[in-house]
Amino acid sequence: MRDVKPIEAITAVEMTGESADREFDFELYLRQRAALVEQALADRVADAHGPASRLLEAMRYSLLAGGKRLRPVLALAACEAVGGAIDVAMSFACAIEMIHTYSLVHDDLPCMDDDDLRRGRPTNHKVYGEAIATLAGDGLLTDAFKVLAQAAAQSGAAHSAPEALLETIAELADAAGSAGMVGGQVIDLLGEGRDLRLAELEELHRRKTGALFVAAVRGGARLGGGSPEELTALGAYGAALGLAFQVIDDLLDVESSAEDLGKRTNKDQARGKATYPALLGVERSRDLARELAGKAERALGAFDDRAAPLRLLAAYAVERKL
Amino acid sequence: MRDVKPIEAITAVEMTGESADREFDFELYLRQRAALVEQALADRVADAHGPASRLLEAMRYSLLAGGKRLRPVLALAACEAVGGAIDVAMSFACAIEMIHTYSLVHDDLPCMDDDDLRRGRPTNHKVYGEAIATLAGDGLLTDAFKVLAQAAAQSGAAHSAPEALLETIAELADAAGSAGMVGGQVIDLLGEGRDLRLAELEELHRRKTGALFVAAVRGGARLGGGSPEELTALGAYGAALGLAFQVIDDLLDVESSAEDLGKRTNKDQARGKATYPALLGVERSRDLARELAGKAERALGAFDDRAAPLRLLAAYAVERKL
Repeated sequence: MRDVKPIEAITAVEMTGESADREFDFELYLRQRAALVEQALADRVADAHGPASRLLEAMRYSLLAGGKRLRPVLALAACEAVGGAIDVAMSFACAIEMIHTYSLVHDDLPCMDDDDLRRGRPTNHKVYGEAIATLAGDGLLTDAFKVLAQAAAQSGAAHSAPEALLETIAELADAAGSAGMVGGQVIDLLGEGRDLRLAELEELHRRKTGALFVAAVRGGARLGGGSPEELTALGAYGAALGLAFQVIDDLLDVESSAEDLGKRTNKDQARGKATYPALLGVERSRDLARELAGKAERALGAFDDRAAPLRLLAAYAVERKL
Repeated sequence: MRDVKPIEAITAVEMTGESADREFDFELYLRQRAALVEQALADRVADAHGPASRLLEAMRYSLLAGGKRLRPVLALAACEAVGGAIDVAMSFACAIEMIHTYSLVHDDLPCMDDDDLRRGRPTNHKVYGEAIATLAGDGLLTDAFKVLAQAAAQSGAAHSAPEALLETIAELADAAGSAGMVGGQVIDLLGEGRDLRLAELEELHRRKTGALFVAAVRGGARLGGGSPEELTALGAYGAALGLAFQVIDDLLDVESSAEDLGKRTNKDQARGKATYPALLGVERSRDLARELAGKAERALGAFDDRAAPLRLLAAYAVERKL
């Protein structure tokens, strides 16, 4: 974060494949990967009959609502960047997205951020009520660890060593739990209406967003057979990318309409939350995001072309409009 | 459940060690085991400083509030029943209790059962507010899987095979998630004010209580090196014991005072919940509990004296006063 440089020459035009000399159509890649993840999620969190079918319906309502699927796409891309086949990381990718989705369902609850709109649709508790929404979140979180622990069985012949799977479970739980995402949400809640300093805001987002990004790329790479050095480099990539992503989220909250974004906007200001634009202004926030994306990309210095999607994802995190 | 027999000659007097010829003091055993678990929990969910310290405080408030510690004690006893040392199952025992505690914290929330009193103290949200209570539950649930996945590291030299740990994680998540406990809570909520038939009530409790009992004894035994046959027998034991335990819970809710029980009583009736005493009457409910405890004990037929605590626990489940 010290050496302020704008991210190198990758532009939105190049990313979206409108430039003929890109090796692949990045937007198509994102759509295809998101569709793969969507299918894998639908398989793993199957519709149910019987007395608890309402629960599965509520879980699937939020889980299968589309979305960028950024965390699972990152996990799969990191797996490939170290030479792994995406099958070995697919259950992990699903588990990450289930945990991300549970956190959205609980964050939207009336006792938390009290949001009505998410991914362009009414939030879970608006449709199913608070009790079922709370339980749908609990179910997604718990079932995520089932999906992950059963990954060896799911991926058949091509699976990782059980030790790698155990380490991945421990790291994911650490990233999602009190030391990571849940702790970040508490800092967020307790910080409302209070002026956070830049360092506090960074700590908040490191835990609330960054930890899961780091877990996504490190886990995907570990299951793909990555070396400790590769995992360390990818961890640095994930941390910078996660923060860049959050800075842009803050900017989009200020600059977009709810219609564009599929969720309520300007809500940070309304709740008295500290944000990057509020602390740094819009321009310096955008510079910071670009700087972080550049830092993420530089962390991939030792990787070959198989890391191309990760490099493009770093640029995408900054240039995205939703 | 067909062959109605009262449980054999183990009485409360024998259990509490007042009879000189018992091989050990069962009440002392329970207290000592609960104290061991308490210490292990305090170690694994440590106090924290910094901005999220309030979260850890809330998690520990509910986790370290005493209680019978029945599920972890069952896990440790099952581990010993198959010849394992309790150290290999201690992290698992802690994970089970963390998951049980999270479920209590969430069940007590205003949008669920809306309870003010638990284990003789104000419920989590009464002390910390709904948002932090929800997150404390999320943190306990997530961190449980971290504790379990790190079990090999925690128990040092004496640890189970990674495959056994993965199977245990998958089974615990299955028992706690949408197919088990969370699903049971949904059935419970949706059944309020409606007359459940006996079969529905049993299905509810099989998922809400029984699944975690089964996971406790099967997991403890698996980590202790138990055979598939031993795990199957212990699963039958856990299922019968869990149901017996729930029948007695229903009876205690009717017959005890809040002061004795440390939580609000007569609440089932107040909320229009189906209960065993309401469906069967007090006497037939007590008979059913004894019958189930007998069934649990018979499932242990092939075990030697190392299963003595499990046998005594079956009797205790029925004779307990809180």
